[in-house]
Amino acid sequence: MWVYEKKLEYPVRIKNTNLRAAKIIVSQYGGPDGELGASVRYLSQRFAMPYKEVAQLLTDIGTEELAHLEMVGTILYQLTRDLSEEEIRAAGFDAYFVDHTAGVYPQAASGTPFTAAALQSKGDPITDLHEDLAAEQKARTTYDNILLLVDDPDILDPIRFLREREIVHYQRFGEALRLVQDRLDARNFYAFNPALS
Amino acid sequence: MWVYEKKLEYPVRIKNTNLRAAKIIVSQYGGPDGELGASVRYLSQRFAMPYKEVAQLLTDIGTEELAHLEMVGTILYQLTRDLSEEEIRAAGFDAYFVDHTAGVYPQAASGTPFTAAALQSKGDPITDLHEDLAAEQKARTTYDNILLLVDDPDILDPIRFLREREIVHYQRFGEALRLVQDRLDARNFYAFNPALS
Amino acid sequence: MWVYEKKLEYPVRIKNTNLRAAKIIVSQYGGPDGELGASVRYLSQRFAMPYKEVAQLLTDIGTEELAHLEMVGTILYQLTRDLSEEEIRAAGFDAYFVDHTAGVYPQAASGTPFTAAALQSKGDPITDLHEDLAAEQKARTTYDNILLLVDDPDILDPIRFLREREIVHYQRFGEALRLVQDRLDARNFYAFNPALS
Amino acid sequence: MWVYEKKLEYPVRIKNTNLRAAKIIVSQYGGPDGELGASVRYLSQRFAMPYKEVAQLLTDIGTEELAHLEMVGTILYQLTRDLSEEEIRAAGFDAYFVDHTAGVYPQAASGTPFTAAALQSKGDPITDLHEDLAAEQKARTTYDNILLLVDDPDILDPIRFLREREIVHYQRFGEALRLVQDRLDARNFYAFNPALS
Amino acid sequence: MWVYEKKLEYPVRIKNTNLRAAKIIVSQYGGPDGELGASVRYLSQRFAMPYKEVAQLLTDIGTEELAHLEMVGTILYQLTRDLSEEEIRAAGFDAYFVDHTAGVYPQAASGTPFTAAALQSKGDPITDLHEDLAAEQKARTTYDNILLLVDDPDILDPIRFLREREIVHYQRFGEALRLVQDRLDARNFYAFNPALS
Amino acid sequence: MWVYEKKLEYPVRIKNTNLRAAKIIVSQYGGPDGELGASVRYLSQRFAMPYKEVAQLLTDIGTEELAHLEMVGTILYQLTRDLSEEEIRAAGFDAYFVDHTAGVYPQAASGTPFTAAALQSKGDPITDLHEDLAAEQKARTTYDNILLLVDDPDILDPIRFLREREIVHYQRFGEALRLVQDRLDARNFYAFNPALS
Repeated sequence: MWVYEKKLEYPVRIKNTNLRAAKIIVSQYGGPDGELGASVRYLSQRFAMPYKEVAQLLTDIGTEELAHLEMVGTILYQLTRDLSEEEIRAAGFDAYFVDHTAGVYPQAASGTPFTAAALQSKGDPITDLHEDLAAEQKARTTYDNILLLVDDPDILDPIRFLREREIVHYQRFGEALRLVQDRLDARNFYAFNPALS
Repeated sequence: MWVYEKKLEYPVRIKNTNLRAAKIIVSQYGGPDGELGASVRYLSQRFAMPYKEVAQLLTDIGTEELAHLEMVGTILYQLTRDLSEEEIRAAGFDAYFVDHTAGVYPQAASGTPFTAAALQSKGDPITDLHEDLAAEQKARTTYDNILLLVDDPDILDPIRFLREREIVHYQRFGEALRLVQDRLDARNFYAFNPALS
Repeated sequence: MWVYEKKLEYPVRIKNTNLRAAKIIVSQYGGPDGELGASVRYLSQRFAMPYKEVAQLLTDIGTEELAHLEMVGTILYQLTRDLSEEEIRAAGFDAYFVDHTAGVYPQAASGTPFTAAALQSKGDPITDLHEDLAAEQKARTTYDNILLLVDDPDILDPIRFLREREIVHYQRFGEALRLVQDRLDARNFYAFNPALS
Repeated sequence: MWVYEKKLEYPVRIKNTNLRAAKIIVSQYGGPDGELGASVRYLSQRFAMPYKEVAQLLTDIGTEELAHLEMVGTILYQLTRDLSEEEIRAAGFDAYFVDHTAGVYPQAASGTPFTAAALQSKGDPITDLHEDLAAEQKARTTYDNILLLVDDPDILDPIRFLREREIVHYQRFGEALRLVQDRLDARNFYAFNPALS
Repeated sequence: MWVYEKKLEYPVRIKNTNLRAAKIIVSQYGGPDGELGASVRYLSQRFAMPYKEVAQLLTDIGTEELAHLEMVGTILYQLTRDLSEEEIRAAGFDAYFVDHTAGVYPQAASGTPFTAAALQSKGDPITDLHEDLAAEQKARTTYDNILLLVDDPDILDPIRFLREREIVHYQRFGEALRLVQDRLDARNFYAFNPALS
Repeated sequence: MWVYEKKLEYPVRIKNTNLRAAKIIVSQYGGPDGELGASVRYLSQRFAMPYKEVAQLLTDIGTEELAHLEMVGTILYQLTRDLSEEEIRAAGFDAYFVDHTAGVYPQAASGTPFTAAALQSKGDPITDLHEDLAAEQKARTTYDNILLLVDDPDILDPIRFLREREIVHYQRFGEALRLVQDRLDARNFYAFNPALS
């Protein structure tokens, strides 16, 4: 179980609203490679992971992704405070606003609601860790793209922090994969599913 | 942010595997009225909730639903351990197994992956609290149906606990709705959105 | 069965096309809280509703939502007549136009096709009525948001009518819920599903 | 707008419950080629249809499909009354029951919720009528398949009626297509979209 | 199986990038009536098609649609080369860019990922051919709409070629339908499914 | 473009129908980790891949996955020939049959239609190659699971061939990743997106 601590993993203090930034950053809330998907992926995979330290890693990173989800939600909230009708129209935020006002909703930038179809929990340690390595790279590229499209340093600061964490997660999943492969016959490490053996 | 505590909110100790039970209980993991949807709904709505005590309630209940998600995941894991090919076929678990082995995956009993289309974060306090009251009733009915279809007391015990918690949440959301309505003009409490005023 | 009467429940006479308005109003045609979902929700729930007067209410309101769907479709049609290429581009209507020309298609403002994942028919009278109360509040907020974003009085007039009807429906579902609860043991009205007893 | 008449287009009187039949017939309620999709398709296309008599035909058939939806819902209700736990398990109805009890819900036999992705409203008269001809043939095949899999004459009787109506609709859409083509230059009838001219 | 030939079916040589054009043309890559859906539809239907020459036609046209998919992907690639941040923002391409950079991804113009819900493989020759005739008309209308919204002759040239091919496919599917109907009893050609006889 | 050659990459000759096997093998046709998704993933990613030899590899493997799709479709066709009503019921194949008869349709074993939400084309070479490595491992696990659940050697033979090919693809994508990393600054190979430089 989890205990909530009333602070963000890293501070978010955005002075100016920015609907165009919100429209794309929402993809890191509920998009195909966003923080909700990351958290659900790792917190689901850990049940069937047969290696204790890897299961622990999935719990740790899955828990941290919840903190990232909270940070991204906070960014979205701060970017969409005190909207005027003119800003909503000028930024093309109306398609979002009509269905969610300024509520934070888990969707991609395209408007597609979050779907677990974008993640897998395969019940095979080596496969799940490959899924996780790919997930971290996809999240990293999404943050890269946000960094390209956004100028406000108040936004860039927490986004850069989040991007750095994805790289750390990528490295730790890489170590976990080596750990799993070392326990299996080196030449045949994708020959069978150790979760079933 | 959240801190993980390595214990379940309520113990889950299931001695016998039961794939038919797992096939329906998975709906409380990733189905339309399940714990993942509940948690995402409340933890998303809280950002735009203008009343501090209601935002706090959403955080509290959203955090508890994460603990429920973990309990349901644990139930699924214990129900699907050490499967034999014969059990998988006899229980019709093969459609799940082919894509997820015994990994825990967020989907409905029907096999549909979890989708945020089943939840709303509307950015209007009264509307969001109605969404939440309905969500708790839908989760309650789902647990009712599981209680009808499952016999093993090891499963029934945590399921009954989870069902009771939904009723407590329902009551607390009802109190929050009254609190919000009391702050608004009594006769017109659905006349405008206080989050925008 | 239904008999079609060739008139709208409330007149729709829009003189000027307005693609930006059409882009958001389409959410009340096929979006997550729109009229198609409302109609399907109520007309589906009525079969398993064990109380005759509530089943009748679901039929009545479900039938009226069909009339609202027709009104919203008429609004969309009138807003998108005689389009020029320039208007389509200027309003960002091209993403809709390429796939549906000026045909009326059931989708959300975000472009997501209508999905029944956004509604529930749970087979439990108290739960279904909570779902319905939430649905009316969500539709009400959506109309609130349209009223904020649209200026043309020709559009505002039927939208205000539709919004008022949602509030009436909300009140009637509230009465139905009390009626159902009165028939059950007062203290335990969410303790079991009367549809199964 | 529509007026409800409290009778079915064709009587449905099923004496014996049959969950296996319900599991497949639900596809004609909310499946890819079912009555809900048919009704939404025709009632949506009529707005942009430039030929009055074809628009009228779409209204007529769309209205009749609503009556068929009601018949299929009634069939589902009668097939799922008074369920016992044993019947639910034996028929594999538990995946449906856990999320909807015996409520009628618009989904395919596969469990996928109804989605408008399976229908098109293209804003081009010739294209929309081809869509409609195909829809009627797909519905007809679905009824053919139900007739192959079901034995109870109480079920077969209304299913045969519904199948016959699809063939009549197919013929009427064929006449409408000829009518539209006759008004266009015969050799170039798919050369441009008369809804835009 | 297929052998790749390193040339396009028809040349694509676009000198100027154009993100607004790319945003709508992507619907012919992965949208509801696009080339991916066409190819998957025909290449799936052919297995159960009981008439050899029709199965061969499905293979031929399904293979050509793969070539069209490659042409549309090439158009998208050429339209999105060497993007600047300013162009991305000005064209509203940011929602796509954040999740896919300039990678080609199978989605509709609305942003909805490609879904096979928009196509059918019904296992009935007459029904499948009606599905195919409708598919070709829907693709034709989509190309019509692109031709209306795009001005650059470098884009228009391959789009016109693709549109022409859809009409040829439509005619060939019409011939196939007549061929199938001729083999069946003329008056009852939709009375049963020859794939099952 | 592609040229069709009328032979399978590896022979499929199944003597006995087997609906239970078909129900799970369909996931390799249109499921989350199946051959359709693999082919679309690689054939889409190649457009934005800046390294010629990797783009060529994506084309080669994407083309081979089309051949695998054909093999899996052939397996499905041979497993579902000449069905009797009794077999359909006994195997629980009725949910599939009602909507697709014995037509091959791209869906998961769960019944969910194929969706591109399960794949990514991210426009970043390193990220896309990680996506591909994960995809091959997920496909490999799916074949592992089919091998566990199926006994007929006529089915096992082509499934084993397909599984072996996934491992070869995995190795070749691993080589491509090293090739890309070698061209970038070794210490910072995930620091920026070379497709944008």
